[in-house]
Amino acid sequence: MTEKYIHTSRIKVRDYEIDAQGIVNNANYLHYLELTRHDFCEEHGYSFAAMHADGLDPVVRRVEMDYLTSLRMGDEMVSCLNFRRRGARFYFDQDIYRSSDMAPVLRAVITIVCLEDGRMSRGERLAAAFADCITEE
Amino acid sequence: MTEKYIHTSRIKVRDYEIDAQGIVNNANYLHYLELTRHDFCEEHGYSFAAMHADGLDPVVRRVEMDYLTSLRMGDEMVSCLNFRRRGARFYFDQDIYRSSDMAPVLRAVITIVCLEDGRMSRGERLAAAFADCITEE
Amino acid sequence: MTEKYIHTSRIKVRDYEIDAQGIVNNANYLHYLELTRHDFCEEHGYSFAAMHADGLDPVVRRVEMDYLTSLRMGDEMVSCLNFRRRGARFYFDQDIYRSSDMAPVLRAVITIVCLEDGRMSRGERLAAAFADCITEE
Amino acid sequence: MTEKYIHTSRIKVRDYEIDAQGIVNNANYLHYLELTRHDFCEEHGYSFAAMHADGLDPVVRRVEMDYLTSLRMGDEMVSCLNFRRRGARFYFDQDIYRSSDMAPVLRAVITIVCLEDGRMSRGERLAAAFADCITEE
Repeated sequence: MTEKYIHTSRIKVRDYEIDAQGIVNNANYLHYLELTRHDFCEEHGYSFAAMHADGLDPVVRRVEMDYLTSLRMGDEMVSCLNFRRRGARFYFDQDIYRSSDMAPVLRAVITIVCLEDGRMSRGERLAAAFADCITEE
Repeated sequence: MTEKYIHTSRIKVRDYEIDAQGIVNNANYLHYLELTRHDFCEEHGYSFAAMHADGLDPVVRRVEMDYLTSLRMGDEMVSCLNFRRRGARFYFDQDIYRSSDMAPVLRAVITIVCLEDGRMSRGERLAAAFADCITEE
Repeated sequence: MTEKYIHTSRIKVRDYEIDAQGIVNNANYLHYLELTRHDFCEEHGYSFAAMHADGLDPVVRRVEMDYLTSLRMGDEMVSCLNFRRRGARFYFDQDIYRSSDMAPVLRAVITIVCLEDGRMSRGERLAAAFADCITEE
Repeated sequence: MTEKYIHTSRIKVRDYEIDAQGIVNNANYLHYLELTRHDFCEEHGYSFAAMHADGLDPVVRRVEMDYLTSLRMGDEMVSCLNFRRRGARFYFDQDIYRSSDMAPVLRAVITIVCLEDGRMSRGERLAAAFADCITEE
């Protein structure tokens, strides 16, 4: 099921992420998604810290998230992503599943633009660094 | 400028919400939006705690957020909302502005469904409680 | 009751700070304490951002916290502090009370040292900036 | 070096835990310590969720933390603990080291008391559950 993605992270819910309703608070999913993107970049050999040192700063421009199933205390998730580009905009298609039964938990599309030396760019340098795994549209 | 909204909260950025890029981390905006919705409900006389005691549990189903300007250390924001309903789905249209110059910071649409006694509902009770300020579509 | 402190902040618990036990998660108290210290410095005319711009970076060296009463959803707190110095070490004595009945919630002592231009200092510049409200021991 | 502890967790710093000073924000260490204690309990076969279901609720009463070295982006830590009891009070002695060079990062003592069915207890049930690894004083 995860073979259609270019990257998969396994993340365990931490008890302090649970809120008064007994479920993971909504805001934590943005943390899981960020963690997954940064893991992906690091495994690909180009971490966010390294990008920043090179003057490249990816910035989130738009977030769309559909919440399908709530994660609870003790749950583990499989967090997957694909990466595509259309002009100056980069898109991470990110899906989270509950590990125990692969129930879909969250579907998200995160739109990124890339600053180069503090200025909005066409993203050519970022695209070049990930040329082997990005889908150009 | 805020007169077109039914509710406005003023929120000051806290230093611990700033990340390594020197700007408010993306995930904190979901906290600001939740805080604004909960303030709205409380000021309207029906807090989330009171709803929960009555067996009503609003649950976030979908989030759309466009990031327009980054908030920085020391900034204050004006966080506004409107509230509408279409069938079983409730929508909070939430806009955040930077107080100093009213620059638009974030535009969001948060889709909510309402559990009644743990089961998905048509939202009739929630709609009745906010009948004077909700827009039916 | 708060007259014995040199600074007082009023802070409202945010619903997302509540954990699965129905009380404010322990870690959030460090946020409240930091927020109170930063408010104090800002009101005193020397914010953390301004210190940083001047090459001064106060750093937390030790934390002692006694948890006395748990804050819950909807609670408001009164967060108070005093400020003293012994040699190169600065101490914030910080007490939090529940607003509704002034029940003691937390007693803390936060030990700070001050970096000047990235190096450990004797804290002379920080002490000078707060000379009118710091207690020398 | 970790052989003198009864439990060790390896935790990687997440980028969103870094603050404007470029180091892990102080409050996150309480999260790391909680995560380590909960991992320990779960590995020992008695998770916090299971305790809660049995009417046992460990509550933090006091925190002492000495910050020795700041963790930064990309760092991994080794988080270790020992567990002892003196009367109704339980103590977790928790030390965190930076994985790369085992530099000491944090030394903490966390004092716990245990509620049984919502009332303060002598902790007999908790002590019994961990009899094989707790040090009685």
